Amino acid sequence: MAESEWNETGTYENLYERLTAYSDTDYYPFHMPGHKRAEIPFINPYKIDITEIEGFDNLHHAQDVLLEAQKRLEGLYQSRKSYYLVNGSTCGILSAAGACAKRGDSVIIARNCHKAVYNAVKIFGLQADHVYPEFMQCGIQGQIRPQDIEKLLSERKNVRFVLVTSPSFDGIVSDIAQIARIVHAHHAYLIVDEAHGAHFTFSRYFPESAVSQGADIVIHSLHKTLPSFTQTAALHIAGDLADEHKVEEMLGMFQTSSPSYLFMAGIDLCMNLLEKSGQELFETYEQRLSWFYENCRELKSLHVLTSKDYEPYHVFDADKSKIVICTLRAEMNGKQLYECLLRKYHLQLEMYSERYVLAMTSIMDTQEGFERLLSALREIDEELNRNASQEQSMELTVLQRAYAAREKVLEISEAGYYNIEETPLEESSGRICGETVFLYPPGIPMIVPGEVISDDLVSVLEECRNMGLNIQGMKDKQKRKILTVAYRQENRI
Amino acid sequence: MAESEWNETGTYENLYERLTAYSDTDYYPFHMPGHKRAEIPFINPYKIDITEIEGFDNLHHAQDVLLEAQKRLEGLYQSRKSYYLVNGSTCGILSAAGACAKRGDSVIIARNCHKAVYNAVKIFGLQADHVYPEFMQCGIQGQIRPQDIEKLLSERKNVRFVLVTSPSFDGIVSDIAQIARIVHAHHAYLIVDEAHGAHFTFSRYFPESAVSQGADIVIHSLHKTLPSFTQTAALHIAGDLADEHKVEEMLGMFQTSSPSYLFMAGIDLCMNLLEKSGQELFETYEQRLSWFYENCRELKSLHVLTSKDYEPYHVFDADKSKIVICTLRAEMNGKQLYECLLRKYHLQLEMYSERYVLAMTSIMDTQEGFERLLSALREIDEELNRNASQEQSMELTVLQRAYAAREKVLEISEAGYYNIEETPLEESSGRICGETVFLYPPGIPMIVPGEVISDDLVSVLEECRNMGLNIQGMKDKQKRKILTVAYRQENRI
Repeated sequence: MAESEWNETGTYENLYERLTAYSDTDYYPFHMPGHKRAEIPFINPYKIDITEIEGFDNLHHAQDVLLEAQKRLEGLYQSRKSYYLVNGSTCGILSAAGACAKRGDSVIIARNCHKAVYNAVKIFGLQADHVYPEFMQCGIQGQIRPQDIEKLLSERKNVRFVLVTSPSFDGIVSDIAQIARIVHAHHAYLIVDEAHGAHFTFSRYFPESAVSQGADIVIHSLHKTLPSFTQTAALHIAGDLADEHKVEEMLGMFQTSSPSYLFMAGIDLCMNLLEKSGQELFETYEQRLSWFYENCRELKSLHVLTSKDYEPYHVFDADKSKIVICTLRAEMNGKQLYECLLRKYHLQLEMYSERYVLAMTSIMDTQEGFERLLSALREIDEELNRNASQEQSMELTVLQRAYAAREKVLEISEAGYYNIEETPLEESSGRICGETVFLYPPGIPMIVPGEVISDDLVSVLEECRNMGLNIQGMKDKQKRKILTVAYRQENRI
Repeated sequence: MAESEWNETGTYENLYERLTAYSDTDYYPFHMPGHKRAEIPFINPYKIDITEIEGFDNLHHAQDVLLEAQKRLEGLYQSRKSYYLVNGSTCGILSAAGACAKRGDSVIIARNCHKAVYNAVKIFGLQADHVYPEFMQCGIQGQIRPQDIEKLLSERKNVRFVLVTSPSFDGIVSDIAQIARIVHAHHAYLIVDEAHGAHFTFSRYFPESAVSQGADIVIHSLHKTLPSFTQTAALHIAGDLADEHKVEEMLGMFQTSSPSYLFMAGIDLCMNLLEKSGQELFETYEQRLSWFYENCRELKSLHVLTSKDYEPYHVFDADKSKIVICTLRAEMNGKQLYECLLRKYHLQLEMYSERYVLAMTSIMDTQEGFERLLSALREIDEELNRNASQEQSMELTVLQRAYAAREKVLEISEAGYYNIEETPLEESSGRICGETVFLYPPGIPMIVPGEVISDDLVSVLEECRNMGLNIQGMKDKQKRKILTVAYRQENRI
């Protein structure tokens, strides 16, 4: 189909028609899912979409073909026990947290965790303390430093688990082996949200997986970086500490009792492919990535980040599958670059932030795809060079301010015990926040219930709104009001 | 493919190969999903399996195409607000419960609820009292009587919600309009798990939907009785009472942040089909069902239940899409009939119980399918008539005893605060149960944590095991040990 036939604002009879129309365009996916809409041979999905009938086992009590399928996963990831997830990493995070801690327990979570972690804190009534990543160039959040975890663990008593996200949405990897040693010395569990790192295991070109680095439970979004359907994920138990019965009990709670056989077939197909052809696929992929990074060195106004850029921050490691294109030297912000790549070049990237855009890649990307991206960046760069300007100042980006530490007055779950009011943003400073507010992507909270709204947060939210960043979690559709806690004893309900 | 090529115990390279091999056999699906594996035209699923990119909205904050798609659902079901669910009815039940009650609140739930309801009680720390259905022929559970709910509501104070399952797994419908009046008079919410009744709305041949009967929140499994992918469901808010913001907050917690576009496209395709051709499809379907029931009247040893059979029990209504075949007059139990239909006739039914089997049907069933089932039942019936015997005694079936009322000592969530021990089944009587034990299907608990294990339950579990019924929830794979609560103060952890 010619590109002209795709009409974003067009009307289609249903969502299916809209999606099929889009699938025929020349828009190239530099975003998840990792199968990159490749035409992997697959039967009419209705033909194999069954339920728990004879010969097809039951995911929640796998004893037969689904047990075997999950054993393949265990073999590939070298875990003690692995589980298929059909409700995304979300249910894996909830389950891991619920299996490792009880109501009222103290836990430590990295501030740049996905909102599912904050939901787990709320659901299980945990007392959460945060460890903050340091900020780097372009407002990218750096690693979680082992020494920060050690400090918090020494200050707090009886911490039940530490949960970190590694790699981050931007591909930043923390020193899991070192963190695991510290966490275990304090008799706590280490849960790693490795949602973006399901591909690590398959090649030395990428960082080592947390599964082999001492983490107790590791969660993978299979669809993010591997050729697997959106919403598929895996949970791995490694080492001897985590209780598999508790994990299974939780998975039975947070996942449908009618798991999709399409998803499960898709996961097994993906793992079978990696088992058979993984090495070859990853070799080609690495060559393409190396070629791309090498060629990007010539860009002048745009800048594609490499490990060299992270050196001043002593970042432990970075995932080269994530291509981070920084606009700090250009008269262009993240959104403008994203829009230009989308509208002019039909390259759909995963996300934009204030000062960078992010392209996600996988083994399913084609040489042609990388060439299209490189060629577009070259053209844009050339155009920018004509109006060459000084590198932008390194002052704190909005995001950096957005993710700054905030004073906690109430636990997340306690905030729900008070009446909640709607307060105009400009009058909200000093009040206690009653909702989780985040930018999506990456879905990391700027503020969670129970924390104090600062002057700076108010202006950050206003700037984000003005920049057209996608603010979520605020009930007010115009993003001009924020929910606050009526924090007086008489409002306790 | 000839039937001989399907080998249940055969080895396949992966689950996908196994499923495609099965799809080519002559096995006919009298089970969910409601699309009945029909070859509904569908593109290669990878081609349209995207993420939240430009032009495709975000399910968790729907403002555009997904908002419109959900509005179609609202129009069809005449709800105030409807939501696509990608984690089955399970997440709808958890969300409805979490939106209507807070920790420590008192609620009333029908005993024959799905285990997701018990999980909701546990997650939100609710104080649950049970209302029990009466038992009918063949151990089928009857309706939930409005007067039983009224009695409990009058005894308890400040009940926040009442949750009933209607229709039941077997198709028994309770008087939702009457129940709604009673519940609202006591200032509580009514949540109806109508997972098995998503088709009700589309034809007067079926009972009326709870959405139009006064329920506040209604949950539908779309895949159970409509042509929609397994794991797809819907939540409807009806009336003015339920808080849609709270429902949305909960749905954001219990569903993946990466919902499947395949699922969403499938739901919209299904609704579009019903909108355009629903009337015609349901007319043909009703004719086929009527023809089938009419012809089944001639069976002598087997007995297909109709509303006439429910008259003595004053059942409010029954869903004719569920074909319940009773073996009470035959020298055959449920499992034997199920196995015979499967092995000899290649008819895969949804479930068997002690004294009946259940065939699920939908608009996608073919005349040929109904003919095959009728012809098989005729043959089996004839064979049974040769060895004609007296109708079996109407003594309590194992299931009836299994689902009998049990004494509650601890709330479900409280049981988790004690050490849990593994106790041999034969020594467990009198102890407090530490796990949820249920038969699957239908996934209704026989006992939940905090209830006392009775002598009768012990023998019921042993009989179920000996009959080869699928006992789940017991951690012990051999089903010879049960978890019990070490109910002494010093074991509180």
